[in-house]
Formats: sequence, C-alpha cells, structure tokens
Amino acid sequence: MDWLDQVKWDSAGLVPVIAQEQATGDVLMFAWMDREALRKTAELGRAVYFSRSRQRLWFKGEESGHVQQVHEIRLDCDGDVLLLKVTQLGHDPSIACHTGRHSCFFRRQEGGRWVGVEPVLKNPSEIYT
Amino acid sequence: MDWLDQVKWDSAGLVPVIAQEQATGDVLMFAWMDREALRKTAELGRAVYFSRSRQRLWFKGEESGHVQQVHEIRLDCDGDVLLLKVTQLGHDPSIACHTGRHSCFFRRQEGGRWVGVEPVLKNPSEIYT
Repeated sequence: MDWLDQVKWDSAGLVPVIAQEQATGDVLMFAWMDREALRKTAELGRAVYFSRSRQRLWFKGEESGHVQQVHEIRLDCDGDVLLLKVTQLGHDPSIACHTGRHSCFFRRQEGGRWVGVEPVLKNPSEIYT
Repeated sequence: MDWLDQVKWDSAGLVPVIAQEQATGDVLMFAWMDREALRKTAELGRAVYFSRSRQRLWFKGEESGHVQQVHEIRLDCDGDVLLLKVTQLGHDPSIACHTGRHSCFFRRQEGGRWVGVEPVLKNPSEIYT
C-alpha cells in the first residue's frame, strides 16, 4: 500500500501539518497539505504546503526565501496529522512567520489577554518585496 | 474584547491545538478545542479538549490518568491555532498517546514506508481498565 494512501485525508483532501525546528524543538508554524504537497515535500526534502486561501500548492519560502529543509516526516496515531522536523533557512536567527517572527505562536495568554512575547526579526515589508 | 473572542473559531466552533512537552520540546499530540474547552483549560491549568468523535468536552486523562498540566497557552499569527506548553503527568516516562507511547507522532516516513520509531511504554489494556 502506498504510504500516501495511509494518510487519512479529510473531506477536502487535506491534513494538518505541524512544523517543528529540529535543532531547537520550537514549534514554528501550522499549515495544511494535500496529497501532492506531501509527495513533493518528500521528493524535494523541502516543505510544500497547500494554501487554503489561494487553493494551490505553496512552496514555503517561494516569496520570502524562508525555505524549510525537511529532515523527518512523522504521522500520528490516527494517521490524520503530520509533523515535520525542519531546518528553517533564509535568515539568522530563523524566521518562519509571515510577520517576520521566529515562530507563528508569538502570543501568550496572560491574565485574560493575548500578549506578544516574540520580537519581529525582520520587517515583513523587507521580506515580501 | 474577551480573549476567547480573539480566537478565530472555525465553522464548527473549533480550533486545532498542538500540545508540546515543556521540558523536552517534544510535540506530544494534536487535538481540537471549542470555546468552553479553552476557557476550562485556562481556568483549571489542565488540558481540556473537545472530542470530535464523542462531541463533548474531553478532560485529557479522565480515563487514562494521563493529565496534562498547562503552563502556557499560545495563539498563532492568524489567531486560529493554539499551542499548549504542558507537563504530561501520570506515567514516567510520560505517555500522551492512547497507544501507550510517549508521543502520538511515532511513525516516520522512511523510503516510502511509515516506520514506528517509538516504543509502547505501557499496554493500552492496562491504561484503559
């Protein structure tokens, strides 16, 4: 059985994907893949997602240069969630978020408020030129 | 504005949630929350998810004893994904997966196959008695 068929794609043909930085363990971002995105990711060794807003393959870094090199692809117990172990390329320190931050998860709940706790490392207007 | 209203709940009133072990950085599992689950999680300092299969609140550990103590709740840039930093209680070494493994992400893609790379730490029949 094809390994791609062992993934339980949802009704839209997608699965959730978590990208984790291999060297630090930091959770960088969350996105989606369709079958073609996963096949390409494995083939190229770089993260290829499916953009739900644009309804097309999204080669992570195609605009920003912030490409993710993929070391491992993991599948969860239910077969319906993927975890990538990546090296986040293109900037040092690494930037995964379109806001210019290291991680997309930069807001922390504190006393009933969401508080930004990670700095912008590069202005998005300089990333997306 | 209520911090719960700043979360972008999907059409089913849910958001995806990633649980990460604070001490190790390991990604343990992926689940969903509704508004009430998130409110309870913050109030109790333990992970409460929404079970889509049972369509009710799921107090993680309610059957297994594998409760998750929650240290941080993070929100992503788009406001539609949560990240919990947790301590996984109930067994040493810690078990988050219903299969008795440390993490749900125990299968790795290797040469076109999914290969299990994490041991069962406790037999599920002994966990769910």
